[in-house]
Amino acid sequence: MSNQGEEAAVRWGPPYLLYLGSATDDLAIKTARGLAYWRPQWCLGQHRRPDCTVTLGLPDLGLAQARAAGADTMVIGAANAGGVMGPEIVADAVAALDAGMNVAAGLHHKLRDNPDIVAAARRNGRALFDAREPRPNIPVGTGRPRAGRRLLTVGTDCSIGKMYTALAIERALRQRGCAADFRATGQTGILIAGAGIPVDAVVADFISGAAEAISPARPDDGWDLIEGQGSLFHPSYAGVSLGLLHGSRPDALVLCHEPTRRHMRGLPDYPIPDLGDCLEANLAAARLTNPAVRAVGIALNTSNMPADEAAAACRQIGDRFGLPCQDPVSMGVEAIVDNLVACFAS
Amino acid sequence: MSNQGEEAAVRWGPPYLLYLGSATDDLAIKTARGLAYWRPQWCLGQHRRPDCTVTLGLPDLGLAQARAAGADTMVIGAANAGGVMGPEIVADAVAALDAGMNVAAGLHHKLRDNPDIVAAARRNGRALFDAREPRPNIPVGTGRPRAGRRLLTVGTDCSIGKMYTALAIERALRQRGCAADFRATGQTGILIAGAGIPVDAVVADFISGAAEAISPARPDDGWDLIEGQGSLFHPSYAGVSLGLLHGSRPDALVLCHEPTRRHMRGLPDYPIPDLGDCLEANLAAARLTNPAVRAVGIALNTSNMPADEAAAACRQIGDRFGLPCQDPVSMGVEAIVDNLVACFAS
Repeated sequence: MSNQGEEAAVRWGPPYLLYLGSATDDLAIKTARGLAYWRPQWCLGQHRRPDCTVTLGLPDLGLAQARAAGADTMVIGAANAGGVMGPEIVADAVAALDAGMNVAAGLHHKLRDNPDIVAAARRNGRALFDAREPRPNIPVGTGRPRAGRRLLTVGTDCSIGKMYTALAIERALRQRGCAADFRATGQTGILIAGAGIPVDAVVADFISGAAEAISPARPDDGWDLIEGQGSLFHPSYAGVSLGLLHGSRPDALVLCHEPTRRHMRGLPDYPIPDLGDCLEANLAAARLTNPAVRAVGIALNTSNMPADEAAAACRQIGDRFGLPCQDPVSMGVEAIVDNLVACFAS
Repeated sequence: MSNQGEEAAVRWGPPYLLYLGSATDDLAIKTARGLAYWRPQWCLGQHRRPDCTVTLGLPDLGLAQARAAGADTMVIGAANAGGVMGPEIVADAVAALDAGMNVAAGLHHKLRDNPDIVAAARRNGRALFDAREPRPNIPVGTGRPRAGRRLLTVGTDCSIGKMYTALAIERALRQRGCAADFRATGQTGILIAGAGIPVDAVVADFISGAAEAISPARPDDGWDLIEGQGSLFHPSYAGVSLGLLHGSRPDALVLCHEPTRRHMRGLPDYPIPDLGDCLEANLAAARLTNPAVRAVGIALNTSNMPADEAAAACRQIGDRFGLPCQDPVSMGVEAIVDNLVACFAS
């Protein structure tokens, strides 16, 4: 993982210290939680301010202590409202750099735009990484076929499990000995993968080009598992979803859904689309760049449902579409991966 | 029209001097030609270097001469390959500012990124305007209903007549005494309208928000004629087209098409979509934010066809869809506007 800009020679990466700051609710630390969940082997500990009321269950480490324990990068995995970088976070980022760590963050406010943080990185010879900043010179999408196999997670809404599903399929394929790589398109995914492009932050003309860039031709028989974004049915963000669909040129789609959600995120007047309409719209759009695309499974986020209702929902939806339907977190993705492998047996 | 950045108090606008530079083909001066065609009353003359081989038929004026004749802004309406700003253009922009004019341009390279041009603007108290630079603080799209009526031009491909069609409908509606405003989404349109947002240059998360921002609620019974971009069937740019469709929340669509084109612009392996498929896909996507949307006409760009074939194509396509079908440049848009008015008679 190399950082952006002039100190490009400095690398950042694990082991990580996860910075939780003054967070007081779980939503604020979802980036840190994602990292601790999917890459526990990279996460040495957490750093919390005295007023922090949440925990990841990792050892609490001071900055010097974390550095001495081998932490190479402090990841700012907590967001205030609006993703802004308050004076406390700035002071702690400077202190982490002075303690000898790199600093990575997925905030709207960029580390690189803060002169104190930039100066601290420079005087310590350490790297800064803003996961929400796209790399420069992303090309326009070409729509051309390329080698390799790609699966994209799509959804009925935003924040519905597309990243978790892609990561779960990566893990399951690797456990079976298949070459498989998660391809990140959002800031949490990028910190988990150590690479990727935040597609919602690229200039609009380059959305499909960004998707092509993160999943280039691969010569082996492996899979790219591409993290979807937004929804074709979300009136704020559907353009991102469509560009990502075209640029990914997916062979396989997995549709992600949260059965208890009643309206699109942030928009009470927009109901969640019918699963069948959503699946068909995604397949129709995906056929533009890959006419052979097919749906291989449905991933439900059942975290708000009792276990028996969750199991019944999976059975009912699976039967309706003739596709394996599972909650990747509570049930795993073995049935979906079985179907994926069977569909594309060569 | 106010400019961006620190000299925001300085206004730019017509009368215009159109700068053709060293252009040697018509494609290179398409921005200047659009301005001269749609806003002849604003265009005092053209400025050409000795090696320029094309003309708009306007008086050739030197910089001081143009200023003396009343030109307030020189519009750089010519592009080299790649939209770059060569040393000749920089020198001429500086000279125009020193002659007392503002400078506006729609190039990829920004006037504001050139220190010589910025210094000349400052020392002369004149404004710079980069039409490809989106205004700051564009909000996320809301998908909410808003007052007013909106028509969006959509297309089977890029560069197929969507701007000309929207401008022709604006003119025809105004001639009938209807309130009507062209809403620009590309650099040429923005220079013609003196306002707008280049939607392909906004950050991807804000495409639909940009469309909402350029066509805000209007209290009168008038129409916003929104310039479409790209095509839902263009694998490089469809995300822009979809976000624009959702954010425009159009009441009416006009489908634009070029009957002799065989493949998508720049992509020989992608055939032009069937007109019926394209119309249905646009209507289906537009229904997300406005279920009452309807198609009111089809605009053909027949500039590559003999007149009899053009007329036959309009008849045949019009009959197939039961919609008025015209070439806005050679035939006008009266039949399309008749249908628009009839469909929305209140």
